[in-house]
Amino acid sequence: MTRDPHGPDSGRSAVRRPASIKDVAAAARVSPTTVSHVLSGNRPVNEQTAARVRSVVNRLGYVPASLARSLQAGSTSVIGLMIPDISNTFFAELAKGAEDAAHDLGYGVILCNTEFDAEREDRYLGMIRSRFIDGMVYASGSPPSRRRLEALMGRFPIALADEEVDGLEGALIATADHEAGGRLVGEHLRELGHRRALMVTGPRELKSGVARAGGFVKAFQGHVTERVGDFKEHSGYRLVSELLAAGDPDFTAVFAANDLMAFGALTALREAGLSVPGDVSVVGFDDIRAASLAHPSLTTVHQPAYDVGRTATAQLLQYVSRGEVPPASRHTLPVELKVRASTAPPAR
Amino acid sequence: MTRDPHGPDSGRSAVRRPASIKDVAAAARVSPTTVSHVLSGNRPVNEQTAARVRSVVNRLGYVPASLARSLQAGSTSVIGLMIPDISNTFFAELAKGAEDAAHDLGYGVILCNTEFDAEREDRYLGMIRSRFIDGMVYASGSPPSRRRLEALMGRFPIALADEEVDGLEGALIATADHEAGGRLVGEHLRELGHRRALMVTGPRELKSGVARAGGFVKAFQGHVTERVGDFKEHSGYRLVSELLAAGDPDFTAVFAANDLMAFGALTALREAGLSVPGDVSVVGFDDIRAASLAHPSLTTVHQPAYDVGRTATAQLLQYVSRGEVPPASRHTLPVELKVRASTAPPAR
Repeated sequence: MTRDPHGPDSGRSAVRRPASIKDVAAAARVSPTTVSHVLSGNRPVNEQTAARVRSVVNRLGYVPASLARSLQAGSTSVIGLMIPDISNTFFAELAKGAEDAAHDLGYGVILCNTEFDAEREDRYLGMIRSRFIDGMVYASGSPPSRRRLEALMGRFPIALADEEVDGLEGALIATADHEAGGRLVGEHLRELGHRRALMVTGPRELKSGVARAGGFVKAFQGHVTERVGDFKEHSGYRLVSELLAAGDPDFTAVFAANDLMAFGALTALREAGLSVPGDVSVVGFDDIRAASLAHPSLTTVHQPAYDVGRTATAQLLQYVSRGEVPPASRHTLPVELKVRASTAPPAR
Repeated sequence: MTRDPHGPDSGRSAVRRPASIKDVAAAARVSPTTVSHVLSGNRPVNEQTAARVRSVVNRLGYVPASLARSLQAGSTSVIGLMIPDISNTFFAELAKGAEDAAHDLGYGVILCNTEFDAEREDRYLGMIRSRFIDGMVYASGSPPSRRRLEALMGRFPIALADEEVDGLEGALIATADHEAGGRLVGEHLRELGHRRALMVTGPRELKSGVARAGGFVKAFQGHVTERVGDFKEHSGYRLVSELLAAGDPDFTAVFAANDLMAFGALTALREAGLSVPGDVSVVGFDDIRAASLAHPSLTTVHQPAYDVGRTATAQLLQYVSRGEVPPASRHTLPVELKVRASTAPPAR
């Protein structure tokens, strides 16, 4: 091994050998152990020495063997997690489940929060492909990305969490039983005596929302007015306000396809001088923490958000850790109706 | 360039040259463009061809030039974000701000949720060092990691968000004005006529909580009973329940150092048959979404969680993108008291 302080790779050989930790140590006039301490930060090293080591590392382009190995195996032990709205506690819980499962297996999770923005999702998909990320848990579903997702399927490890995606029927998926949740709400309102309901759905392209609506309509067996929201609180507020402003509302109950839109509905009803549940009953979906704190406390469908994220990730990593693409499989997790103070029999 | 289908690197040369995209293309009998399409997933490629390309990529240990370049520059365009509790919407909002700032500059964010667990935090710190991650936004503060953090300071780009850390006085920090927030609460309760308060703090090692408590005590100028919680909802519940069970409570107001503990206090008071604010006033800190939904709606201090995360990350990346470690700087963001329905003059 050369002791040339300019390092073993000063451009004289046409075919370069990657720099080793010994090369770095020799060029920086320290022991390999010291190089290791500087890079890991595990032990304090004299600052002047550390600066010299870092400068040599940069000059030689040294990549630690462990990292080089994992890159040559095409693996970085990092997966992506694509979610639409981290400030909705449903997705924060899902992310926590995903991150716990990944952490157990020594994987890192790159957070890709799309804000329901297709362009942002697309840029994240590009990043995931270009950085040798090992796999992806996808809990989103903006339709414009479908083509790009389809191109990845079967050649890149993907698990769907929470949301099914058209064209990705061959995927590994973990999801709550959305259809059963809608059915439980329909039965509950029907049993209370409601016959006319307003249903505030999510975007039609999202299958979870379509399943909730389908289950609800089937079980409710009454008159249902449908309005399409976007799963954000404001859309629940706006849609209910518009209907109330247009005159006598043709419903005694509101079923919002998630809790955030139900909170918006509560605000709209309060502003219109209507009491909940005296005048109108309100039901949400998700059972985020705020649902039981709300006034009145919100009747809603409890989804196991944490378990959805954890199951999707744990299942995915079983395959990722073997360098395989997961085959189609479905993990449907049960939901539960939480009856609280926002539902009661209709006034008439 | 060799056309040997076994590739240029079949072990005959002692010093290996990294495989290029042309080597992969030659060995797989396709064009370099096709190799690129297979790896990026940007364009569909016949599945049999794609499988052959992937197999060659693995055999030759091909690393795309863009990735190899960034690794040799010691950069992965990924930063870590260490937070204690993603299911607390305060940290979800902070994470959203951090992720937005990173996304704007083409950086990915690895989510490190520690659950206030020092061992887990330590393992994440190890991961951050061993994977060539470019920097870290640290919004946590479990004291056992301090030594490891100190070892990183000055040699690895770190920004503190929300929480100051002893021994890291030289850091870049973005934080809300916790002391002013505590003062606003103290003044508010004093002006309402309260003279005896219970203060439920966070762990004493967390300086944000200490600053809130200090500001409160100074402005309140009355009798303060102090109990130490852990920023989780249950500790607010438990501490207030214990005091109530022990006999006549020596307070007419509760100041909890975050909203979650305030929610726990609300539940404990309700279970004891006390009304809020009729018998006892309650104030929180953070102004997470559930605070305005709670019953009664919670008087609290609004912290700009999103801006704290965004500012810390944007400031950090200014330096990271130039390969520099940030110098000490402080960005203090203003807070605001939100007076809602949980505070009123004391009964007596």
